[in-house]
Amino acid sequence: MVKCTLSLVMYNAGVLTISDKGSRGERADESGKVIMNLLAAAGITVARYEIVPDERKLIADTLTEWADEYNLEMVVTTGGTGLAERDVTPEATMSVIEKTVPGLAEAMRAKTFSISPTAILSRAVAGVRGKCLIINLPGSPKGVKECLEVVLPVIPHAIDTINGRITEHEPSHTGSHKNAN
Amino acid sequence: MVKCTLSLVMYNAGVLTISDKGSRGERADESGKVIMNLLAAAGITVARYEIVPDERKLIADTLTEWADEYNLEMVVTTGGTGLAERDVTPEATMSVIEKTVPGLAEAMRAKTFSISPTAILSRAVAGVRGKCLIINLPGSPKGVKECLEVVLPVIPHAIDTINGRITEHEPSHTGSHKNAN
Amino acid sequence: MVKCTLSLVMYNAGVLTISDKGSRGERADESGKVIMNLLAAAGITVARYEIVPDERKLIADTLTEWADEYNLEMVVTTGGTGLAERDVTPEATMSVIEKTVPGLAEAMRAKTFSISPTAILSRAVAGVRGKCLIINLPGSPKGVKECLEVVLPVIPHAIDTINGRITEHEPSHTGSHKNAN
Repeated sequence: MVKCTLSLVMYNAGVLTISDKGSRGERADESGKVIMNLLAAAGITVARYEIVPDERKLIADTLTEWADEYNLEMVVTTGGTGLAERDVTPEATMSVIEKTVPGLAEAMRAKTFSISPTAILSRAVAGVRGKCLIINLPGSPKGVKECLEVVLPVIPHAIDTINGRITEHEPSHTGSHKNAN
Repeated sequence: MVKCTLSLVMYNAGVLTISDKGSRGERADESGKVIMNLLAAAGITVARYEIVPDERKLIADTLTEWADEYNLEMVVTTGGTGLAERDVTPEATMSVIEKTVPGLAEAMRAKTFSISPTAILSRAVAGVRGKCLIINLPGSPKGVKECLEVVLPVIPHAIDTINGRITEHEPSHTGSHKNAN
Repeated sequence: MVKCTLSLVMYNAGVLTISDKGSRGERADESGKVIMNLLAAAGITVARYEIVPDERKLIADTLTEWADEYNLEMVVTTGGTGLAERDVTPEATMSVIEKTVPGLAEAMRAKTFSISPTAILSRAVAGVRGKCLIINLPGSPKGVKECLEVVLPVIPHAIDTINGRITEHEPSHTGSHKNAN
């Protein structure tokens, strides 16, 4: 229902692929392409796209720039959420978000666990910086697809709440008592 | 089994509604009423009730006062757990709890996800301050009911463990090896 | 599939039982034995075993020593994850891990919730310090068994990722885009 009233609003998103090999041009970014296709199919415009290495400061700086200067309404990252030494995407993301949205990461892990048990090892986080929703996805094309499909249905509601476009009291229960206030 | 032996103990709870409109008297507090009815039905006495605006310091101060000075065994909040700019209940709660109890919030989100997908956007947290269990619920009457029903069955066990009234080693597994110690 | 290629690698684990009574010799450590049997059955060598009281600094120091000086690839703790005043295992663990792996604790709570509702009160955490995976389990033998069975299937993958032994891009999606890098 919410989605009906909001389907006229266009969202601008960024896709940030975090991969040492990808950033050196040594591997094609299949996961980034999967995200772009899924976002396009959901009517979301991909306004920024970049591949950066697994460097915490660089990831944090890119997220900050995209949220603060390009005013993107959403950034989706892929890669760097695992247990390898250089996997630092969650830490970089936590350092720039102002509010965590733990349920998005919990739901992605819980729903994909039955398909791929190792999905529970993803340390992905999600949160809000200013007016920008930031969501970490895992690194593999399969993981990206499975996880994004879990959260995609609630993303319009999330973005519109962040931006104050949902001003009526919703029948859903995202926790807000607020109307226009 | 635990509940049998403990059903003679009365718990004192507080209900804190967090709502800008509600605090100005511009909206009736249906969610607060739903909580009070559900707690009463579970044999829990509502000893404090208040509506405050979405102000982080005010929420934190009220939780602190209720836990430290009124010795409430539980405080249930409603509202302010979403993604809107003024939703700060989780941050206010985190600033006053000494121990987090992540499973309560995880279970509420996981169980209500199938009913209302946007339930995973609730940023609710739960934790312990001194001898007081604090649980955030979302803002809508429907969300409040769905979430409280998930956690209500384990609340007596939680409160009695916090207060040291469970001194026998339990067949359940809340993690404590302790008896009277 | 991953497990096939890695079944030749031996892992060294530590089992740390956290219990005031157990540390004073006033109670047999059944939970510790359950863990040791399950790890042995999974081909994991238990190289260290100790019972310590519920003292935050002592727990943190033991975890640090086992990870840094004994180079254990995994430490499993039991006890101290509940709501009792002296339950401080999660706080002690958080103070020494460098990366959290929230999905392990989430999955243990979610999967055991249907068997034992109070399982959601476990405040267990999991994370990585250096090359060592640390996982909190609850205190009861029943809880230990139920929880360990949830995470055991992904532990070889987790340890091998931490130690850089998984160098091929995996079909699973633990978030890493990295190969040898």
